Amino acid sequence: MGGSLALAIKEKYPRVSVWGFARKESTFRKLSRLKLLDRVERDLAGLVRDSDIVIMALPVYSVIEYFKKIAPHLKKGAIVTDIGSSKALIETAAKKTLPAYVHFVGSHPLCGSEKNGAEFARATLYKNTLCVITSSKKDIGAQKIKKIWTALGVKVIFVPSVLHDKLLSLFSHLPHMVSFALTSSVSPGRLLPIIPASFKELTRISGSSAEVWADIFLSNKRNILHDTAQFIKNIQVFQRAIQVGDRKKIIRYIGRVNRAHKKLIHYYS
Amino acid sequence: MGGSLALAIKEKYPRVSVWGFARKESTFRKLSRLKLLDRVERDLAGLVRDSDIVIMALPVYSVIEYFKKIAPHLKKGAIVTDIGSSKALIETAAKKTLPAYVHFVGSHPLCGSEKNGAEFARATLYKNTLCVITSSKKDIGAQKIKKIWTALGVKVIFVPSVLHDKLLSLFSHLPHMVSFALTSSVSPGRLLPIIPASFKELTRISGSSAEVWADIFLSNKRNILHDTAQFIKNIQVFQRAIQVGDRKKIIRYIGRVNRAHKKLIHYYS
Repeated sequence: MGGSLALAIKEKYPRVSVWGFARKESTFRKLSRLKLLDRVERDLAGLVRDSDIVIMALPVYSVIEYFKKIAPHLKKGAIVTDIGSSKALIETAAKKTLPAYVHFVGSHPLCGSEKNGAEFARATLYKNTLCVITSSKKDIGAQKIKKIWTALGVKVIFVPSVLHDKLLSLFSHLPHMVSFALTSSVSPGRLLPIIPASFKELTRISGSSAEVWADIFLSNKRNILHDTAQFIKNIQVFQRAIQVGDRKKIIRYIGRVNRAHKKLIHYYS
Repeated sequence: MGGSLALAIKEKYPRVSVWGFARKESTFRKLSRLKLLDRVERDLAGLVRDSDIVIMALPVYSVIEYFKKIAPHLKKGAIVTDIGSSKALIETAAKKTLPAYVHFVGSHPLCGSEKNGAEFARATLYKNTLCVITSSKKDIGAQKIKKIWTALGVKVIFVPSVLHDKLLSLFSHLPHMVSFALTSSVSPGRLLPIIPASFKELTRISGSSAEVWADIFLSNKRNILHDTAQFIKNIQVFQRAIQVGDRKKIIRYIGRVNRAHKKLIHYYS
């Protein structure tokens, strides 16, 4: 996500200098080799001191951890943003940890890839996608970040962090849990020589990063547990109807789902 | 499925006469208007009497019901095949109902579309897909049906019906149930203006036909109930780890899923 964003910014703003922080020596070497960035640093303080905008492309709890590390070094008036998938916890941590003289803006671009690492970066990842900004529309930092996303071809909407986390639980976090559990259901040795397209589609995102998703699930715990419980109840209605052979009930259920699906299609990206 | 197959056969075998049966007057008019077929009939007996190969593109229990209707009219040496998604029940019914002087061949092409009706027919639907034949490789009817599928660009494998139903439960029937339940989890009014690609992928098949899928679930009941129970257990392991905040366990779980997904990729169509 970070690598693709660097490429997209560089393409749109060729005169802006895009820098990257590498915690590990191996990442430093990889980032230097890939030449995505104008400057790669292992010295976080030095990098942050020189930055007008700091973009944190990290798992949720790492964002919160790094707030503490960067707080003492941030410039007055700097903008700090993140691209994490759950927002309320990050927002609370930012308020608590970052100095009052910087602007924190919560961003969540609704795109991604199941492939992780700067070597998979591509400038087009964000094009024609949606980004939710959870900070106030009135904040000048939020306006600046909106302007950048818009320049990258991203549609921006403002949604408060608490509502964001509810919506994303349903439309992204639950689907990821479902996809992980579905792949996990396949025991090796019981395979078809060609797996149907539907199974492929439902399990694509089960290749997503364990660290990133553990943090998302834990940081949006209440919504996810609520939605998962509801999802299991929906499956159980199905199970019981199959168990007792209630064909009419199954047809009514799928009929309702078909109509809901028809409405959803209009919102698909 | 039936309309697309008619188009594909017509394209590959232009001299073969492809006929269709229409139960309802409205379907008769639609099929006549669409001109997919060389002959459209409302008289089943007359149509079957003249047919060398009868292909039943119907929901599972309708296939079984129509076995009884066509049985008295079938030619000696005729081949009867179906394209249903569960096979053991159909096979048993065929043995019981069809005369000994015809060849029954169970076929299941692993493709499809969430759009139903002859108006969505396309000759390319089957190209580069897999078809499972559940009848014996030695049967001359099965060899003939294999030849036709192969000519249409479909890879054929022979799998006994009982194993077929186990595999399909996991790779197709469970994913459909999951997709139906996921769409069903979305309450109207709680929507994002653009729904992420992952949600779209996981819910595409929730537009699938209620009649077709009710029959699949009921005719493969034992396998589906088993796999659904296992799937729910997998989700519950997740739920509990989130509940107690066991980050390491979640990471181990997703890590295992990631490795399984990497192996599955090689089998994707």
